[in-house]
Amino acid sequence: MSSPVSINYSALGERSQPPTIARLMTLMLENPKLLSLAAGFTDNQTLPVPAVQAAVTALAKRAGEPEYLQYGTNQGRPKLRALLADRLLSLETPPDADTVRKNFFVTNGSQQALYLAMQVLCDPGDIVLVDRPSYFVYLEMLVGLGVQARSMPVDADGRIDAAGLSALLETLRTRGELKRVKAVYFVSYFSNPSARSLDESEKNAIADVLTQAGVIVPVVEDAAYRELYYNQPHAARSVLSLPSWAAFPKLYLSTLTKPFASGLKVGYGTSSDSALLAKMLHVKGHHDFGTANYNQALFEQILSEGGLDAQLAVIRPGYQRKMRALHGALTAGGLPALGWSWAVPGGGLYLWLTAPAGLDTGMDSAFCHACVKAGVLYVPGDLCFGDDAPKNFIRLSFGVLNETDLIEAARRFVGVAKQFA
Amino acid sequence: MSSPVSINYSALGERSQPPTIARLMTLMLENPKLLSLAAGFTDNQTLPVPAVQAAVTALAKRAGEPEYLQYGTNQGRPKLRALLADRLLSLETPPDADTVRKNFFVTNGSQQALYLAMQVLCDPGDIVLVDRPSYFVYLEMLVGLGVQARSMPVDADGRIDAAGLSALLETLRTRGELKRVKAVYFVSYFSNPSARSLDESEKNAIADVLTQAGVIVPVVEDAAYRELYYNQPHAARSVLSLPSWAAFPKLYLSTLTKPFASGLKVGYGTSSDSALLAKMLHVKGHHDFGTANYNQALFEQILSEGGLDAQLAVIRPGYQRKMRALHGALTAGGLPALGWSWAVPGGGLYLWLTAPAGLDTGMDSAFCHACVKAGVLYVPGDLCFGDDAPKNFIRLSFGVLNETDLIEAARRFVGVAKQFA
Repeated sequence: MSSPVSINYSALGERSQPPTIARLMTLMLENPKLLSLAAGFTDNQTLPVPAVQAAVTALAKRAGEPEYLQYGTNQGRPKLRALLADRLLSLETPPDADTVRKNFFVTNGSQQALYLAMQVLCDPGDIVLVDRPSYFVYLEMLVGLGVQARSMPVDADGRIDAAGLSALLETLRTRGELKRVKAVYFVSYFSNPSARSLDESEKNAIADVLTQAGVIVPVVEDAAYRELYYNQPHAARSVLSLPSWAAFPKLYLSTLTKPFASGLKVGYGTSSDSALLAKMLHVKGHHDFGTANYNQALFEQILSEGGLDAQLAVIRPGYQRKMRALHGALTAGGLPALGWSWAVPGGGLYLWLTAPAGLDTGMDSAFCHACVKAGVLYVPGDLCFGDDAPKNFIRLSFGVLNETDLIEAARRFVGVAKQFA
Repeated sequence: MSSPVSINYSALGERSQPPTIARLMTLMLENPKLLSLAAGFTDNQTLPVPAVQAAVTALAKRAGEPEYLQYGTNQGRPKLRALLADRLLSLETPPDADTVRKNFFVTNGSQQALYLAMQVLCDPGDIVLVDRPSYFVYLEMLVGLGVQARSMPVDADGRIDAAGLSALLETLRTRGELKRVKAVYFVSYFSNPSARSLDESEKNAIADVLTQAGVIVPVVEDAAYRELYYNQPHAARSVLSLPSWAAFPKLYLSTLTKPFASGLKVGYGTSSDSALLAKMLHVKGHHDFGTANYNQALFEQILSEGGLDAQLAVIRPGYQRKMRALHGALTAGGLPALGWSWAVPGGGLYLWLTAPAGLDTGMDSAFCHACVKAGVLYVPGDLCFGDDAPKNFIRLSFGVLNETDLIEAARRFVGVAKQFA
């Protein structure tokens, strides 16, 4: 029972709406036999229970005071930040490695870093340029903050369309909106939702078009899935290292949730821009004045002992097997012959399906309802577009279900697709 | 090195300033021999290492999938919420216990709950009525959000002054500002910084004056130190149970950090108002979509096994001993004879000192500089006032230092006080 008094919410309070994920979870709860290809959860079978327990035991045996159960610092534990910086600097060699190292910070998953960045960069009505498709939780956050997402145009293969982006910026200039563009955001490795990775030429194209338009705004590169490749890493360097982005304030974000354990909720990032980092940390000081110190201490132990690489050695082939199970079952079931298409990913947790043109697969579509009725749930692709959302895309996740369930879920899904063929 | 480009920060970004705590920490780093009576940290010696390790081991032995290392839910683990609700409902019996139980939620320390509440309730320029003195990290958060704090007047004993509050509301009405009052906030048990507790008559007085003025706005009761009493709990019920607050939307916040381990960063709360809770959870979905599931699972285990009560049985007399060590050394050193006064607290982590009238003890005062030079650090009391801050208060924390260091810190502090007598 709510109070009879009507509360005067803030503008943000008024804008805040139940996230789509809540609707999907409600569907799950109401239909317990549903197999979920929607949840972006990771694999329960391979969670690193012994590694966590070993880390806890090692901490307990450590000499000295158990400061790891005490408050930590707002920016994060120095040793963890150094270990994470070492790890990034083993992947690429940014020109200003000292700043990259100094500006490492730790957050409650990379989600918090995204939120802090948008809080300090954007006012309501401002614009962020986003990839197409983009991460839907991020897009819903922008809606909550009153910020407009504008998709960077892509070609038929999903590659960044430089001419299209240039035209978009020209349109914004004509409308007097160019000065409202406050940031650029993209998921660059085995993306959620598309499973695509941006190559260096695409990242360069974005930088070049923005530079030509005089739009030198902070760039946020979301590398959450960078380490979740199956056979080899995606070779592209991040914006921290690419000369085309040298003049831009840069924020590079990633996480220890997806590659190790999402239940520990530790994300991280670094910035080329100390002033931007300082602003974000001021706000983090108000959010929580520091991510759980214990979890950070566990990760110091785990990273020092090689536990992250050991876990990755388990889950990389594990996710590849699960991807192949889902991909194989959809293919064997005959989905391509019905006009559906998707790329086989080289990493990540998702298949990004293009349905036949004209088939509406949105949340309230007949197709979606038929899938729920058949016992399979997916994320409607239209949620993953900042604007001008097509209705015929679908994100399938193979993170949670085991191979047997993935095959059954695929069977149900193809069955519905046949009804709508 | 920051980029040469100047970033266009949001209004919030522009308002965000380095928190005072950062200045205090810098002072500590630059003066490693300083003894800190400033940090609100808890006691390292008594941190519950074996209890945490036992909980981890119990989780690892549990049958079934290790879902606790997986993502959890935004509102928090149902079992933990039920255990926390049981605990609160053993302390008092609110009339709508079902709603209190249903609306339990888990946050990254109670700090995040405060932030979420202010985000959804207040726009820049709005007003929150706060206790006097009040929690300084909260007050700095309000500044960051552009929200004005107005102190509820108190009498010479620090008790709520109903007539003064009524006059304040009348002044706000005259100025046309009454409609900008969006919430009321107070720390009600063994407060940070004053160590005072509000009794029921004071809480009732606030409600009555607000009701008379027609200001029925959400009340936020911060009960972070409720369980940190030394000998017996403070008997007052919370706003959830007091009939005088029945018509108000109510938010009750507390934490597992202070009574167990701040490094685990788990706070909690409940609301009488489901709509308010929903708005806060929508925004939490954007902050982080859920507090670390692992930490919540640890607390389920710890609470189920009586570990919280066992820890409290250790730290209650521990903090009382440390309080007595500091209080005793200040008294024996002769501080009262110099015109200083303070109440002996019945719980919490703080002594709240009134310096002789006219002595400036602010951050940039000669007194403060002399203390740093003498090797002792404190929190200037003027930080703890929403407005009209007097300069002659000081918060001393006995949370971190051991008894020997507390006595030495007191000796240094009294030495400086004698210089300024």
